[in-house]
Amino acid sequence: MSPGYTALTVRREHGVAVVTLDHPPVNLLDTELIADLDRLHAELATDPTTRVVVVESANPDFFLAHGDLRLLTDPAALDAYVQGPGLDLFQRYRALPQLTIAKVTGRVRGGGAEFLLHLDLRYAALGNAWFGQPEVSLGIFPGGGGTRELPALLGRARALEVILSGQLYDAATAERYGWIDRALPAAELDPFVAELAHRIAAQPPAAVAAAIAAIDAALPARPDSAEREMALLMPLFTSADAIDRAAAALAAGAQTVAGERDLEGLIERATP
Amino acid sequence: MSPGYTALTVRREHGVAVVTLDHPPVNLLDTELIADLDRLHAELATDPTTRVVVVESANPDFFLAHGDLRLLTDPAALDAYVQGPGLDLFQRYRALPQLTIAKVTGRVRGGGAEFLLHLDLRYAALGNAWFGQPEVSLGIFPGGGGTRELPALLGRARALEVILSGQLYDAATAERYGWIDRALPAAELDPFVAELAHRIAAQPPAAVAAAIAAIDAALPARPDSAEREMALLMPLFTSADAIDRAAAALAAGAQTVAGERDLEGLIERATP
Amino acid sequence: MSPGYTALTVRREHGVAVVTLDHPPVNLLDTELIADLDRLHAELATDPTTRVVVVESANPDFFLAHGDLRLLTDPAALDAYVQGPGLDLFQRYRALPQLTIAKVTGRVRGGGAEFLLHLDLRYAALGNAWFGQPEVSLGIFPGGGGTRELPALLGRARALEVILSGQLYDAATAERYGWIDRALPAAELDPFVAELAHRIAAQPPAAVAAAIAAIDAALPARPDSAEREMALLMPLFTSADAIDRAAAALAAGAQTVAGERDLEGLIERATP
Repeated sequence: MSPGYTALTVRREHGVAVVTLDHPPVNLLDTELIADLDRLHAELATDPTTRVVVVESANPDFFLAHGDLRLLTDPAALDAYVQGPGLDLFQRYRALPQLTIAKVTGRVRGGGAEFLLHLDLRYAALGNAWFGQPEVSLGIFPGGGGTRELPALLGRARALEVILSGQLYDAATAERYGWIDRALPAAELDPFVAELAHRIAAQPPAAVAAAIAAIDAALPARPDSAEREMALLMPLFTSADAIDRAAAALAAGAQTVAGERDLEGLIERATP
Repeated sequence: MSPGYTALTVRREHGVAVVTLDHPPVNLLDTELIADLDRLHAELATDPTTRVVVVESANPDFFLAHGDLRLLTDPAALDAYVQGPGLDLFQRYRALPQLTIAKVTGRVRGGGAEFLLHLDLRYAALGNAWFGQPEVSLGIFPGGGGTRELPALLGRARALEVILSGQLYDAATAERYGWIDRALPAAELDPFVAELAHRIAAQPPAAVAAAIAAIDAALPARPDSAEREMALLMPLFTSADAIDRAAAALAAGAQTVAGERDLEGLIERATP
Repeated sequence: MSPGYTALTVRREHGVAVVTLDHPPVNLLDTELIADLDRLHAELATDPTTRVVVVESANPDFFLAHGDLRLLTDPAALDAYVQGPGLDLFQRYRALPQLTIAKVTGRVRGGGAEFLLHLDLRYAALGNAWFGQPEVSLGIFPGGGGTRELPALLGRARALEVILSGQLYDAATAERYGWIDRALPAAELDPFVAELAHRIAAQPPAAVAAAIAAIDAALPARPDSAEREMALLMPLFTSADAIDRAAAALAAGAQTVAGERDLEGLIERATP
């Protein structure tokens, strides 16, 4: 167990690392949490004994909030982000040698939901997990891989609905749309994910690695559109729509527990 | 509001254009309706104030019937169609700058169902919407994009079933197959689509446009098979199977209200 | 009706061939059944009167077991398999001119489940059909097309879960995951498949052939990863994990009726 994390904890047993996001009040994906996720990535990338990673939240209401809205209102914060480890963090998680599993309770939105898309498997609690990409309501769009990964999972039509509506989706709908692998009754989620993680961690390593390699070799060719996504996104960061809407949302209580419960409604009411 | 349409009406409010197909008796996709859809396309393509288009039907039993079966029985009608605006109409709707949404009640079949596939989002009323591609039963196949768009939405296996069986599918099955985004209780369909349309129309335009561009840039490469589809289709139009089956279906009441209620059964009983 | 099959029967009526797998005790995909499927393939490939093929099982508990585990414990058996007709058998079934339909009751696993993936349409009985790829638990992976076809049907995330967990899935979950076209109440399965098969067999042949060709021409480009899959698989066949686990499973009763009921549990308990 590595010391020094401030926004998450890690415990390991039998080849499974359980990462618990614990960054009050709402697990905001801010500089501090990004720094911890970056350090954790480096640790996992060189850890041959850990074979499966489970990501969960210590906060029953929030799995992982969005990126810090101050990136939109504070040019210095945006500069620091672009120089920092956050820019390719999600893609580096996708490339980890471990199988990564998200166990979602609470809300996961925006950049947090894009992090989720880069893990391998996603499970959530029926009635107690919600998914949203509110970026367009804030004048930007899910440009950290959201527009690349959501169509691959949901298809073009449902990805358009999710991204353009900016609304929150419950776990049952997320399963029907293919956003998550499976929505389970809340009481079954912990044992299901624990059993799956330990089962896979106990499989013959060479067979697991070869199976993943064979699956990835067979996927349909997707355009390498990450640069295009970024080129479309960056001008929006300095648009009046984005700056005004983010400032209004922050003033109305975004990034607090009360404000994040119904962030979609808050943005709608706060929009100038 | 543009004057002069005979087979549909258009009303606009707050950036949303609601197109109501109204071409008795069954909203047949014939020369007249195609001409109106072509004019509407031209109008929308140069209309910067309309941001979302909702397509609905004035007829609770029929959203949009198929193409005119006389294309199969009357060579002059086929010639006129091939020269006319219908041939690439669906692809031009797909390329509109607006987000297009179908709100389906009643039956939608054949060429009408292919038009539906080229809109961006599709919603339908549980218990009161049905989808079918009866072309193969008539000796042709859904060659107006059906064999290109259905596999993208449903996968190869379910697209094969739908296209080769020629049967009618209810809204619940259409949702499970991915044919439509969502099937809603009939009473919820109107408010759901209205709220979604107005919500998207009120989003920051630059963010919406960039999100759509980023999604389209990320889609898996699909072969440009439109020419191949057409080359496979055209010889069937002059086959004895197609001519005889279309003539028998027309003689048995296809393209009338009574005949179109169970068109699949009518074709089966009428086939020589 | 061709004489001489020992592990299956074939009956033909009105353009539909019904193939009944009948290879006690568990429809193991062994040398004998592979030889029969190879002969059947040759017969179908040159049979212009058969237009639809339905594959079913005479055994209500087992649709098709996996490949013979002795390929892992007996090098001579593996050599014979690699020289034999089994290596490209599934891909040759995919290329048949007929539309192929699986009607699944009972368990289908491993190589049997990969055969299933190469048929065109898949239907199963709710409450009485189970699907599994236990290969990774045996130190190998589904390298007979499983890692190529499952992601195409289920998407990357759900394919990873199925293949890495090695667990058994019921028909309802298989339908939700897209593994099968549809799960039907057990009493409806026979009439549904019979009606679908005969309906398609009665459609105009040129239209059916053109529709299939147009669909296949429109599918997203997938990498030709069969060689890569095989290159990843072959070294595992001679790994200690695979040999030891297969030997332990055989000693514990794999490939018997009792042992195959819960093969996943048997492998877990037997693993050294």
